[in-house]
Amino acid sequence: MARSRTETVLVTRWSGGERTRTPDELIVEEPMAIQLDGHLVATTMRTPGHDYELAAGFCLTEGLLAGEKVESVRYCATGSAMESAFNVVTVETGGRAPVPTARLTPITSSCGLCGSTELDTLMERLPPLPAAPPELTLARLAELAETALAGQPLFDVTGAVHAAVAFTTDGEVVVSREDVGRHNAVDKVVGRLLLDGRLPAHDLALAVTSRASFEIVQKAWSAGFPAVVAVSAPTALAVAAARRAGMTLAGFARAGRLNLYAPERLDP
Amino acid sequence: MARSRTETVLVTRWSGGERTRTPDELIVEEPMAIQLDGHLVATTMRTPGHDYELAAGFCLTEGLLAGEKVESVRYCATGSAMESAFNVVTVETGGRAPVPTARLTPITSSCGLCGSTELDTLMERLPPLPAAPPELTLARLAELAETALAGQPLFDVTGAVHAAVAFTTDGEVVVSREDVGRHNAVDKVVGRLLLDGRLPAHDLALAVTSRASFEIVQKAWSAGFPAVVAVSAPTALAVAAARRAGMTLAGFARAGRLNLYAPERLDP
Repeated sequence: MARSRTETVLVTRWSGGERTRTPDELIVEEPMAIQLDGHLVATTMRTPGHDYELAAGFCLTEGLLAGEKVESVRYCATGSAMESAFNVVTVETGGRAPVPTARLTPITSSCGLCGSTELDTLMERLPPLPAAPPELTLARLAELAETALAGQPLFDVTGAVHAAVAFTTDGEVVVSREDVGRHNAVDKVVGRLLLDGRLPAHDLALAVTSRASFEIVQKAWSAGFPAVVAVSAPTALAVAAARRAGMTLAGFARAGRLNLYAPERLDP
Repeated sequence: MARSRTETVLVTRWSGGERTRTPDELIVEEPMAIQLDGHLVATTMRTPGHDYELAAGFCLTEGLLAGEKVESVRYCATGSAMESAFNVVTVETGGRAPVPTARLTPITSSCGLCGSTELDTLMERLPPLPAAPPELTLARLAELAETALAGQPLFDVTGAVHAAVAFTTDGEVVVSREDVGRHNAVDKVVGRLLLDGRLPAHDLALAVTSRASFEIVQKAWSAGFPAVVAVSAPTALAVAAARRAGMTLAGFARAGRLNLYAPERLDP
């Protein structure tokens, strides 16, 4: 079902001391529940569209599939045409994925929880990444990221979405997705690659219009991207995670410049 | 315990065809678990600092307190000096808050989930807001938001955080908080007001440097802010929620201009 991803409202614009009435195009934000083999694993506020990719990508990047194959993805629509049925998506592995538990079990007074815990958990779950392709020099990375991220249709009309783009070392865009949530945009890209049998993404790089948080790096690592370029800043934990993963992580990528945060040093 | 909120790393900067090594200041991002009366209710990636405010504010804005008073907020630190003990915060109401359940119970095939469901849930839980103070004309709102959001120390050094600011109709800043997560910044502001006995915030307005998503409007509504100004765009669901709440919602607030999204119309 094609769902509208923008909505026009009349607003009062105030500018230069004048009030005018004008139409304004807003991004649509709707809750979507993701089920894995019948268990609810998440509810996310997302922009409708590419919902199967979002659900499959989320299950993969959060480590819920545990290596199992996705057999089917479908809406929880049972004959009813109600729109809300299209806000619940079920990912099926034939019951082979482990039954999902809460991300953190209830915490006792002997609890420990910190960035190192998160990194250790990732290291247990994910293999180190191969080196980024040598063609991805800093100059090329900055150039390709700029090209890949140019012209995002939903951003252009609403100014309210983030994009994620998987691209080749030749600069070819393989998948490009926009969403009101920056994590969702990455999950949609990863989900498309997963459903196309195109993972791990060892020969691709990922560009995001947002900051690079820990969770963005975790998701990219889960999908096997050896290189991630963000338009904005990374966090300290994202940099630590990328260095542990062996990932190339660049930030502040803008017109012919960027900062390289990982690896820690380039060979001369 | 004073925790560092930024961390300096050496990075490789690539600009104008030149590679240089330079220090770069990153925002710290650490997981924090929030417990309410001994039950884990959330784990959030946040910037350390103002953790009690974040925990108390989160419990309030998510409706978990159900009107009960916060008796104490403390770290889950039991004599151990380990840093990780400062990443778990417990909010106590003396067991009077209802035992938290998952936000969505497992979904059956007769499920319904959509933006209207979310709005109906809010309407049941939250009273309509009083009208925004009449002094808050559009001109004044744009001016005050700009002033309130000027000079955010963590953003200035890292470029990687969002700010939320509660201010009076006189332009006085009451609370100003920054965090790697935009929701966390709002929860920290609300938490401070809650712990100060300063809620509902009927005489204040809230400015955010981010977009106005549904959840930002929900949190502001829960705290009783009659007016919210965002530097960036709102989503369609955020506008629908603000109109249902009777909230004044402005977006794209920048140097002498803004768009008013709610109420739908101003009297002439």
